[in-house]
Amino acid sequence: MKLNGQSHRPIWFDTKDQTVKIIDQRALPHKFIVEHLKTVDDTIRAISQMYVRGAPLIGVTAAYGVYLILNKSTGDIEYLTNECKRLKAARPTAVNLAWAVDTMLASILDEPDSKKHIELSLTKAGEIAEAEVDRCFQIGRHGAKLIEKISKAKKNGPVNVLTHCNAGWLACVAYGTATAPIYVAHDLGINVHVWVDETRPLNQGARLTAWELGKQNVPHSVIPDNTGGHLMQHGMVDLVIVGTDRTTYTGDVANKIGTYLKALAAKDNNVPFYVALPSSTFDWHIRDGIKEIPIEERNPDEVRFVQGLYENQTCQLLVPPKDSPCVNYAFDVTPARFVTGLITEKGICEASEKAILSLFPEQQR
Amino acid sequence: MKLNGQSHRPIWFDTKDQTVKIIDQRALPHKFIVEHLKTVDDTIRAISQMYVRGAPLIGVTAAYGVYLILNKSTGDIEYLTNECKRLKAARPTAVNLAWAVDTMLASILDEPDSKKHIELSLTKAGEIAEAEVDRCFQIGRHGAKLIEKISKAKKNGPVNVLTHCNAGWLACVAYGTATAPIYVAHDLGINVHVWVDETRPLNQGARLTAWELGKQNVPHSVIPDNTGGHLMQHGMVDLVIVGTDRTTYTGDVANKIGTYLKALAAKDNNVPFYVALPSSTFDWHIRDGIKEIPIEERNPDEVRFVQGLYENQTCQLLVPPKDSPCVNYAFDVTPARFVTGLITEKGICEASEKAILSLFPEQQR
Repeated sequence: MKLNGQSHRPIWFDTKDQTVKIIDQRALPHKFIVEHLKTVDDTIRAISQMYVRGAPLIGVTAAYGVYLILNKSTGDIEYLTNECKRLKAARPTAVNLAWAVDTMLASILDEPDSKKHIELSLTKAGEIAEAEVDRCFQIGRHGAKLIEKISKAKKNGPVNVLTHCNAGWLACVAYGTATAPIYVAHDLGINVHVWVDETRPLNQGARLTAWELGKQNVPHSVIPDNTGGHLMQHGMVDLVIVGTDRTTYTGDVANKIGTYLKALAAKDNNVPFYVALPSSTFDWHIRDGIKEIPIEERNPDEVRFVQGLYENQTCQLLVPPKDSPCVNYAFDVTPARFVTGLITEKGICEASEKAILSLFPEQQR
Repeated sequence: MKLNGQSHRPIWFDTKDQTVKIIDQRALPHKFIVEHLKTVDDTIRAISQMYVRGAPLIGVTAAYGVYLILNKSTGDIEYLTNECKRLKAARPTAVNLAWAVDTMLASILDEPDSKKHIELSLTKAGEIAEAEVDRCFQIGRHGAKLIEKISKAKKNGPVNVLTHCNAGWLACVAYGTATAPIYVAHDLGINVHVWVDETRPLNQGARLTAWELGKQNVPHSVIPDNTGGHLMQHGMVDLVIVGTDRTTYTGDVANKIGTYLKALAAKDNNVPFYVALPSSTFDWHIRDGIKEIPIEERNPDEVRFVQGLYENQTCQLLVPPKDSPCVNYAFDVTPARFVTGLITEKGICEASEKAILSLFPEQQR
């Protein structure tokens, strides 16, 4: 994606000084800080302390982490597997983290000549990143058709898309998931405007999605999470697109807390509600999302303190009384009956077991 | 209400130094500041700059404002009516403001002996305050029965009430509207716990409702506005009670933005959704809330900046990128079909034209 005219990703390998570099997303949007990852410990810190976040990006970062292990090691396999175990524990819930580390390990152990391991691991990490880019672009291509159709019906009047949280290129490598259709449509010259839910408590919408869209010159407005229902009642939302952290093969969608409330409002006002996801986000084992998907409860201080800019410094502010208890559930589950469709790299399908398994027949049991 | 063992109101007449005093609600919960209102200009500033807020409290403050006009004047009627006109313009949307000023004026003009006007106006302002207290207490008495019934069904297990924004004693004079049933139930020894929506953008829930409940020792938890749907899906909310800024005679409810989203979730999860209001909040002229109630659009800076405590100072923090547009609608409308019932000073009724007019037959046309 373009930042001030230059192509950028949230993670890249800098060939000049032979290090892995990331954008420190904790400081956005007020400070743009690039960090070097030189060791696996740097990588673990970046993942666990959320310099990087978003399932696809966590996976790619971990893949580069395996390269960094090899780059500092003497080729000892036991050392490698132990360090990989430590890396996988950096954040327990992100499915892509374990997947990426295991994929890297398998490639390396497949190559008997240990002299080739370092270069192989660097190549493989790059391939994992490129595969994410391709999946996101395909999601964008399919989803942009939905936007284009509405644009034609509105005679090129602005298509108002509402999104929640950040399922943008900062969470992936390029394009994003929920934002991919928006970026592709914008590139095609379609008149699109995005309602950005600020997404309390961590404000990933206000901090990250608004920043991303601004940098790509996509028209957008930041709104409190409370606002979407009113906008939909008054015909000011044409389409909702959100990402997901886990989707059952029956179409139930776990995503950032508050997604379910927007889905309810979309249903009540006949606004199409789409979920964009790479197929790696499906959980092929879970039937009932509300009963079976575990919902992470995070530190109440994320609710209590708000991060932002004060006198040109990034700082954290206490909002409620200091002795009032706060509760912080990170996700909720939107039942399939509220989801108009799923936008995947293989195309768009209904949020139903039958439609999902038709698009991914290899998952039939 | 009790604050550190002492009875308190958000407005009172201090007989010792013969001034009107208010709590400056802008500084809560981190600073407790009492302001003196000595002139009508002080009163206008307090209302327009939201030292005081909440329709009933705005009315009572304006009533004391009329006393302050008389207290500083020479008894000239033209001067009085002109100053009253200025007072009524302090905030254009609050119905109670004009009502309170007109009620005060009518009483004064009814008394031919102008020497009695100052004392009369002070008495009358006190009466308006007491009438608000009584209406809120009656709402509390009726609403507490709902909580008591759930408590019995749960064998005294905690009754979890969710509320949005601040419809508490700070918005009224005592008890509040939405909080009145909670305070009365708590006083009766019923085990009640309140989920407090933080209520972006101005965080009246996190700042004011949490502070109020804490001071009365009512168990509560502050949650992001995104959380209620998840809690209801998992049986963690027994009852929703909210206030309202305007309710049509057909039962449509305008309240703080985001109320509609909670009503949708309550309906989807069979959680009773009640609205507490004094009869003065009914609009007897409007049939369709969504089409006819005008929704105030406020300064986007209220979304952009968050107020809180940093290094023991109250300050305001910028959250989104400084050049991202923000949009700030203050209210939304919850259609009557999502409202289980209305809790008024005359009792509880269905949110329907028929039921409302049966409870208030004097409004039949």
